[in-house]
Amino acid sequence: MIYLDHAAATPLNPEVLAVMQPFFTDQFYNPSATYMSAQKVRAALEQARADVAVQLGARPSEIIFTAGGTESDNLAITGVMREFPDANMVVSAIEHDAVLKPATQLNRRIAGVTRRGIVSIEDLRNKIDDNTVLVSVMYANNEVGTIQPIRQIAQLLTQIREERRKSGKSLPIYLHTDACQAANYLDLHVSRLGVDLMTLNGGKIYGSKQSGVLFVRHMVRLRPIIYGGGQERNLRSGTENVPGAIGFAKALQIAVDRRHEESERLQVLQKLTFDLISDKLPGAVINGSQKHRLPNNIHITLPGQDNERMLVELDERGIMAAAGSACSASDDEPSHVLSAMGINDADARASLRITMGRETTAADIHELADTLRAIA
Amino acid sequence: MIYLDHAAATPLNPEVLAVMQPFFTDQFYNPSATYMSAQKVRAALEQARADVAVQLGARPSEIIFTAGGTESDNLAITGVMREFPDANMVVSAIEHDAVLKPATQLNRRIAGVTRRGIVSIEDLRNKIDDNTVLVSVMYANNEVGTIQPIRQIAQLLTQIREERRKSGKSLPIYLHTDACQAANYLDLHVSRLGVDLMTLNGGKIYGSKQSGVLFVRHMVRLRPIIYGGGQERNLRSGTENVPGAIGFAKALQIAVDRRHEESERLQVLQKLTFDLISDKLPGAVINGSQKHRLPNNIHITLPGQDNERMLVELDERGIMAAAGSACSASDDEPSHVLSAMGINDADARASLRITMGRETTAADIHELADTLRAIA
Repeated sequence: MIYLDHAAATPLNPEVLAVMQPFFTDQFYNPSATYMSAQKVRAALEQARADVAVQLGARPSEIIFTAGGTESDNLAITGVMREFPDANMVVSAIEHDAVLKPATQLNRRIAGVTRRGIVSIEDLRNKIDDNTVLVSVMYANNEVGTIQPIRQIAQLLTQIREERRKSGKSLPIYLHTDACQAANYLDLHVSRLGVDLMTLNGGKIYGSKQSGVLFVRHMVRLRPIIYGGGQERNLRSGTENVPGAIGFAKALQIAVDRRHEESERLQVLQKLTFDLISDKLPGAVINGSQKHRLPNNIHITLPGQDNERMLVELDERGIMAAAGSACSASDDEPSHVLSAMGINDADARASLRITMGRETTAADIHELADTLRAIA
Repeated sequence: MIYLDHAAATPLNPEVLAVMQPFFTDQFYNPSATYMSAQKVRAALEQARADVAVQLGARPSEIIFTAGGTESDNLAITGVMREFPDANMVVSAIEHDAVLKPATQLNRRIAGVTRRGIVSIEDLRNKIDDNTVLVSVMYANNEVGTIQPIRQIAQLLTQIREERRKSGKSLPIYLHTDACQAANYLDLHVSRLGVDLMTLNGGKIYGSKQSGVLFVRHMVRLRPIIYGGGQERNLRSGTENVPGAIGFAKALQIAVDRRHEESERLQVLQKLTFDLISDKLPGAVINGSQKHRLPNNIHITLPGQDNERMLVELDERGIMAAAGSACSASDDEPSHVLSAMGINDADARASLRITMGRETTAADIHELADTLRAIA
């Protein structure tokens, strides 16, 4: 079997499982309890937090462990907007539903993207007004893999903050980015990026599902969405997911350690895929910027084909791929990402998302290209 | 080491870990993906849901997998109240913070409890008016182990529904119960209990932390608190915690299978503890009803003693116990539960919570009593 759906889920790295294991069994104690054995669990949890902070260039107190990317996104979006109920927010049109759906409940404007799937800085700037408190743009898109100009957006917000300061306006403006898909391949240093909130998901970096992080810069005002025992600086109540957090820290460390090597390796495979596709499938169209793109993502339209049929046939031939985000695999709506890029419904329904990962080889890619040619 | 803090956390049962294991590694696929391997994961997840439903006498579609007890409580409380923003709710004074804290954000009234830690049905009835849509009373208290009269409350709500029906009022009234502490020992059949929403927590039934369930009766109107990909009938978005859900189902099945035997075994140990304490610590006071009480809970006040010191000394002698709920172990406020029962701060600060579990033996209890005598 050839697995080419790493944007949907990554296999748990055995090294990650190994560091989680003791905290399921021997060290199962509630980290809030007072006895020494529980305090050791607390220490391990806080070490995981510190380890994550180091990887992000953040302070440990800025790391909130959550139950995954969706919860982190919701906490960022809803948490900021509840603190500033009269303000508005701007999100890009190609955000994940974990950002778009909570934003729909709130006062939000949508910034469009180019045909290549890159957010339009101009449109974003136009949508921001004196009442905007939050901008949320994903670091890399989960469908087409396009990398968004986060640093440029951060610079824009710095200018806006400066203008507000000069004109005596006190409303802050925060930048949130969903970095779930970017985390294996891109720089995650929050100060270099200039982000105030950042979402990470263990289940996309060869860590555990249901583990995640929200980075919250110390000055950001945020309300919780889940209340209770006051864990995670009162921002996310509930007994801490100790194995998940410890596994997350390990998974992130491995991702950062392997980033350059793995990115270079996958860029070669990505180029090979593009070459093979243009060679063997002359009508195929590659969607999204090829320049500003995650090295593991290939998104193509095979005009006239039906992606559901292709996925079934690929599966029968041992290749697992996707038509879009797994979350919406079961609904019938065409992708809002492709639609925002100006791709029509017919082409959207003829599109495939191929996302490579650590175990993907050149042989897999040749097999994919040959199989696509056979079935298309 | 003798672990007597099972209300704070239970060790993961190796049988539970064994059923979770394959879903971390080989079967890591996103259950929303379309290929067969992912559909097998989906089938396993749905089987877990069906298994949980059977144990509760519910339909599979009424089982929502969450990230634990706190999230389930928040979803129940906030989810119902957002659907009925003009209505009010009534909660008991001894609820866990996972109920009380979200309730604080909402239009809520508090029903008092007796000196023995049992909710006053009379006060509850008085607090309910024509505008009450939700009543939340825990099944068994996490500090003093008192079992609340859920069936009686359900009967009261049935009467109220009938009265509303007769007078042409259409507002529903739902009963939520937090059954996290009860799940190892009490009947969880939702129809026999008469509850509309019920919270369960994997981390308290020898399952995995960060796994939980909210039972939501089919006719209950509820809004999500986390939005996104629309998983869990749109009530709890985010890639499903497949190992957690499968572990939860196994843990619940084991808990139900062992319920009677384990309850009887612990009742014997509980009586032994009470006898030894009244024998060896003549001034000790047992808090909370002895009749309506979980078989694993012992809660005592040793007047004049300092519980923090006692816990340290117990820990030094190899015994892990608690002063109250682990969540609030780190704050300085006296317990709201003891306070609601009319126990003064000085006595509250001289109180210990001992919660037994599957591995607790009579020898442990003798050791506890001797040690308490030595240090008190």
